[in-house]
Amino acid sequence: LYYYINNQFIPADQAAVSVKDLALQRGYGVFDFFKTINGEAQFLDEHLNRFFNSAQHLRLPVAYSKEALKAIIAELMQQNNMADSGIRITLTGGASESGYAIATPNLIITQQAMQFNHQLAGKGFRLITYQHQRQLPFAKTTDYIMGIWLQPLIQQQHADEILYHQNGWITETPRANFFIVTKDQKIITTKNNILQGITRNRIINIAQNEFEVEERDIHLNELPDAAESFITSTTKQLMPVSQIDEIMIGKGTTGEISKWLFNQLVFHVKI
Amino acid sequence: LYYYINNQFIPADQAAVSVKDLALQRGYGVFDFFKTINGEAQFLDEHLNRFFNSAQHLRLPVAYSKEALKAIIAELMQQNNMADSGIRITLTGGASESGYAIATPNLIITQQAMQFNHQLAGKGFRLITYQHQRQLPFAKTTDYIMGIWLQPLIQQQHADEILYHQNGWITETPRANFFIVTKDQKIITTKNNILQGITRNRIINIAQNEFEVEERDIHLNELPDAAESFITSTTKQLMPVSQIDEIMIGKGTTGEISKWLFNQLVFHVKI
Repeated sequence: LYYYINNQFIPADQAAVSVKDLALQRGYGVFDFFKTINGEAQFLDEHLNRFFNSAQHLRLPVAYSKEALKAIIAELMQQNNMADSGIRITLTGGASESGYAIATPNLIITQQAMQFNHQLAGKGFRLITYQHQRQLPFAKTTDYIMGIWLQPLIQQQHADEILYHQNGWITETPRANFFIVTKDQKIITTKNNILQGITRNRIINIAQNEFEVEERDIHLNELPDAAESFITSTTKQLMPVSQIDEIMIGKGTTGEISKWLFNQLVFHVKI
Repeated sequence: LYYYINNQFIPADQAAVSVKDLALQRGYGVFDFFKTINGEAQFLDEHLNRFFNSAQHLRLPVAYSKEALKAIIAELMQQNNMADSGIRITLTGGASESGYAIATPNLIITQQAMQFNHQLAGKGFRLITYQHQRQLPFAKTTDYIMGIWLQPLIQQQHADEILYHQNGWITETPRANFFIVTKDQKIITTKNNILQGITRNRIINIAQNEFEVEERDIHLNELPDAAESFITSTTKQLMPVSQIDEIMIGKGTTGEISKWLFNQLVFHVKI
């Protein structure tokens, strides 16, 4: 297994960065993550565009053009020769002499074998709500300290994931976007203070062909009336949500619109 | 120059950790930072106690006793042979296979030569306020993404540092605690949702001998009435504050109580 770090392909177990790197010392870094299926990168342009946006938002210069990154990714995929995988591009604050000022970013590309569901999960996720707003939500930063810190709470509550809100206004989960479907088949997803997920945007595009779609704030008190709910991410694709805190969503089983969207997403990936 | 990583003293320029480390990938880590003066570690017990507390708060096991850490630090100091320096102990989430679950932490100890002021700064800091609450404020985590991200704002405003508040209630700066002195010589420092600074606690102890000291929330609207203000940290020791946004503090010059506290702090370090 090879990783790529600053102009070099390196065996994964030797891939390391200086302990002075600002990502390690001060949590200052951005990344993006996309999947490969049958050896083909999925929505690579969208992920790279977001990666460049995140980097710019954090004032981290990217010493590569988009085309250069594509060529490196293609070579990494060829060297590792995995059919289905996840590829992560990380850009760090660099080895900072002052320990605080942005230095020359390190670019790190890693790949790992992954399987993605071809069938919708039989049982939906149970989410528990937690009041928190991610810092710099429009950038895909490396800041997941709250998501990881809250893992024991998830286990104690026999839940699957956290749902962040601010004063009752839902934003997202630590690693996925949030949707509800109303009883009159309107598909609604949160709009503000979230990461614009690539899969979220795909679902919006797919759904718009058949349904009314709204991007707007969603309040916790709308959940008892929702017919369906699901979360979306590159890894989870579309995961139904059956319960949020003590509220059962719809009948507590996976809804028909969720099923339809999942099938469109997974089997018509390149519509 | 040597650093220490997991049982080994390593030349600083070779000191590296795996790119899979959760501190780099997900910003999950804690640290502490203390100074050495004339080759003596300052308030080492207090810093190590806080380090263990931060680690526990983030569920990161420390594979060393306090005494073992002290021995390692003593050996590192001997190898590097610096009189005045800063030493940082970092504990990371470790190289995580899942990229999300806490793994075996890496312990990293770094040292750098530093000089600390023996004279109070002639001109106080200008702070600018910013609404933000640090995540997990009681732990000294590696999360400084907002503090670094806000650097251009500081430069644009010709200021020296940010002062965080939440709905007008002051907490701290990204790397220091906040104090005001009232016109009737009461010394007040913020209490809630802050990092309990070691220097903050020293100042409280020193001040209590001569003045009334209060630990309580401080609102931005108290600032126009303050006689003096200062921030405290291991590196800055005691730094006077002359202006906060457009508000001049007292006469805009360094106050007598700030001077007295600085002298007590710096010249009677081991009271």
